Amino acid sequence: MNHHMIGFVIGRILLTEAVLLVLPMAVALLYGEAAAPFLIPMLLVAVCGLLLSARKPARTSLYARDGLAVVALAWLLMSLFGAMPFVLSGDIPRFVDAFFETVSGFTTTGASILTEIEPLGRGILFWRSFTHWVGGMGVLVFVMAILPMTDGHGMHLLRAEVPGPTVGKLVSRMGDTAKILYGIYLALTVIEIVLLLAGGMPLYDACIHAFGTAGTGGFSCRNLSVGAYDSAYFDIVIGVFMLLFGVNFNLYFFLLIRRFRDVFRSEELRAYLGIVAAAVVAITVDILHLYGSFASSLRYAFFQVASIITTTGFATADFNTWPSFSKAILVTLMFIGACAGSTGGGIKVARIIILVKTSLGDMRKMLHPNAIVTVRMEGKPLSDKHIRSVHLFITVYLLVFTVSLLLLSLEGFDLITTFTALTACINNIGPGLEMVGPMGNFAAFSDFSKLLLSFNMLVGRLEIFPMLLLFAPSIWKRKLPAKKN
Amino acid sequence: MNHHMIGFVIGRILLTEAVLLVLPMAVALLYGEAAAPFLIPMLLVAVCGLLLSARKPARTSLYARDGLAVVALAWLLMSLFGAMPFVLSGDIPRFVDAFFETVSGFTTTGASILTEIEPLGRGILFWRSFTHWVGGMGVLVFVMAILPMTDGHGMHLLRAEVPGPTVGKLVSRMGDTAKILYGIYLALTVIEIVLLLAGGMPLYDACIHAFGTAGTGGFSCRNLSVGAYDSAYFDIVIGVFMLLFGVNFNLYFFLLIRRFRDVFRSEELRAYLGIVAAAVVAITVDILHLYGSFASSLRYAFFQVASIITTTGFATADFNTWPSFSKAILVTLMFIGACAGSTGGGIKVARIIILVKTSLGDMRKMLHPNAIVTVRMEGKPLSDKHIRSVHLFITVYLLVFTVSLLLLSLEGFDLITTFTALTACINNIGPGLEMVGPMGNFAAFSDFSKLLLSFNMLVGRLEIFPMLLLFAPSIWKRKLPAKKN
Repeated sequence: MNHHMIGFVIGRILLTEAVLLVLPMAVALLYGEAAAPFLIPMLLVAVCGLLLSARKPARTSLYARDGLAVVALAWLLMSLFGAMPFVLSGDIPRFVDAFFETVSGFTTTGASILTEIEPLGRGILFWRSFTHWVGGMGVLVFVMAILPMTDGHGMHLLRAEVPGPTVGKLVSRMGDTAKILYGIYLALTVIEIVLLLAGGMPLYDACIHAFGTAGTGGFSCRNLSVGAYDSAYFDIVIGVFMLLFGVNFNLYFFLLIRRFRDVFRSEELRAYLGIVAAAVVAITVDILHLYGSFASSLRYAFFQVASIITTTGFATADFNTWPSFSKAILVTLMFIGACAGSTGGGIKVARIIILVKTSLGDMRKMLHPNAIVTVRMEGKPLSDKHIRSVHLFITVYLLVFTVSLLLLSLEGFDLITTFTALTACINNIGPGLEMVGPMGNFAAFSDFSKLLLSFNMLVGRLEIFPMLLLFAPSIWKRKLPAKKN
Repeated sequence: MNHHMIGFVIGRILLTEAVLLVLPMAVALLYGEAAAPFLIPMLLVAVCGLLLSARKPARTSLYARDGLAVVALAWLLMSLFGAMPFVLSGDIPRFVDAFFETVSGFTTTGASILTEIEPLGRGILFWRSFTHWVGGMGVLVFVMAILPMTDGHGMHLLRAEVPGPTVGKLVSRMGDTAKILYGIYLALTVIEIVLLLAGGMPLYDACIHAFGTAGTGGFSCRNLSVGAYDSAYFDIVIGVFMLLFGVNFNLYFFLLIRRFRDVFRSEELRAYLGIVAAAVVAITVDILHLYGSFASSLRYAFFQVASIITTTGFATADFNTWPSFSKAILVTLMFIGACAGSTGGGIKVARIIILVKTSLGDMRKMLHPNAIVTVRMEGKPLSDKHIRSVHLFITVYLLVFTVSLLLLSLEGFDLITTFTALTACINNIGPGLEMVGPMGNFAAFSDFSKLLLSFNMLVGRLEIFPMLLLFAPSIWKRKLPAKKN
């Protein structure tokens, strides 16, 4: 492990966080609120960042495990510092609660311990939603986009942070790839803000909801979430943009460079839109008797499906009161999640496709042992190593889920609450069912459970391994077991 | 596909079923009940069996896919014929209900559509439990044990029927292996009957409960299951024997030939007993406040844990009223299941060990890309092919589970009932939670759901692939895609 370089990169990330805190502080000042809750953590995190990154390390090489360690530690530290404004402002007095809320923000989960959102300070609510925007595309991607770290080791960092089974560079230089991704991200966010303003939403609310949509987070500034506006126009704009932010960002790059074929032929995009369409139709029919008209049912079904599959978590209806079939569909979508390389969470459509195709291929081989079966994804044959890594992901995901479920059930809440609270956190959605339904919250959980769920949110956002490998003894040792690593 | 040979083997199996029906008919006559409900199906199944197996086929070779087809079709046909006594006796007038009950019997699930068990005829109740005993060790193993089919192709049949990731011959001749397995099975069953008689249980009840224990089925002749006797002695005898029937039968063979080391070193046995011990301790503590004394809590915890992990499904307590933690543990045990090569269902302890060890190995490789990581099971290194087959099993299991869950949720029952009904059926347990808890039943489900759950019971008992491959178009074609199969 290159501890010096790990510290250096983390230092840079903390300095970035200090700069990011300027924005909510400005909003607070604009609304005549105190600046101190932002200024104090800003100074603290800046000092820590400076101390860590003061001296550029002699050896700048980073290996895969260094990348994992940087990402895990950076996200933990950012959340610890990011929680301070909530505590200092007095809006969330207990630190564990503030930590849960901040992790939920950065991981774009959107699960909240707040029972009332509207009385909070404008600056604090802005920071709460801004964490979604920062966490959505990734902190490291951001750092890579703005700081020069051009020694070719950025790939390990990107791999550890960007969701999905594969990460490809769009252009040869890492920093340029990061800049392109953030450019698309920023452009889409601005377009959404403009569209929301056009519909009459106040600028502040438009920013909050665009941040929540872009990061697929789900924090709102209203108790009733997007449902508070009761506007079909806002439902459609936010619904469509949630789906857009759930698409692999590489496809937007292909659009920009006019490789339209690659976009329309994308298996993952087709499967994603297919699943959305099927779910919307099934739920629309299932809830028809609740809303009377086909148009209303379609409107609510579309918004909730878009919100859940992209793991955003905004709500316009209390789906906890929907029939079992609709609830079962939504819970299934919670696990599927959005596309790889998007800002969404969950298992990801790409992995589901690979699992289904590999299984069909293996079963074909069972019937015809001599047949030559090649599993292809997006036109390219999948290597056994790649398939093994997807199987590894699913297995470890299930193991972490099972152990967490047993620990969470110690709370004694009903099993649906327990199961969906964990599902909503590990897949970075936000609301679950029953007590943690769209109109509920996570306030009743114990500190232990809140930390457990925070861990699961990070596990979900960073795709398991960075968080899990923090527990590996060898990652903390200075000596390597083999020289050639 | 060798259709002639497939028909021949299925014919033999149907003839065996005709013979097996003699036993419940004798019981019916002994209790002065009508013989016709058994005689008519017996004649029907015998005629079908004779027609199919009248002429020995010229080519007796069977390939892997033939084995899968034989097993799937044989189990379906046996269940169709086996359901007839229930209908003809008038005890279960509707055929779909009788089919569900028979599939539940043969697959050793123990899920019932009956609200009252005790009013049923003695002969019918005997048949109901006897199907557990027949299905436990497997119908094909039985046929191989009693009929000479010594052309070396029995292995494909055995593989398709015996649970677990690997099947080994104990002795060089297939038929002898089957005889040894059935001998051990019979001996253990007789010992249990004797022990139950010694405790004062009537012979009829002792047979019923020994059948349910041996096959890890769970049908009782009492409405309150084993709890009806309220005897610590019976709880201990049945509890211990459930655990014994959940052990890989190869280990009993090793005991017989004095290879004690292989038994005590068995990783799966150790893990199985370790999981049981941990679950018993955790639940005992969790339910202490419900039963007052430590001894009672331990007794109920031990019995329910043994019943659920072995996928038997007998009950001495209504665990549906237990705290969430205990319920979450039991649901987890439902998925884990018993040891490979036992009569139990579920994913199997061996597969869980392989998944955990492989994941740890793959994560080590992630940290140390140059390290040489070998995953071992029971002392032997696991091949990539073997690991892939376990990953395939888990993936397809999850896919079948998800699709079935969505279809079952159309019933509109609460999600816990829906989820645990499916869990209890696909893992061959019997009772779930809420409406299908130990004191509930499956009567309220629609015909569609009963057939869906029957399919899932067969999927669970035959370990997915035989049932699933019935849907493959190529298995119904006469022409093979490649000559060399």
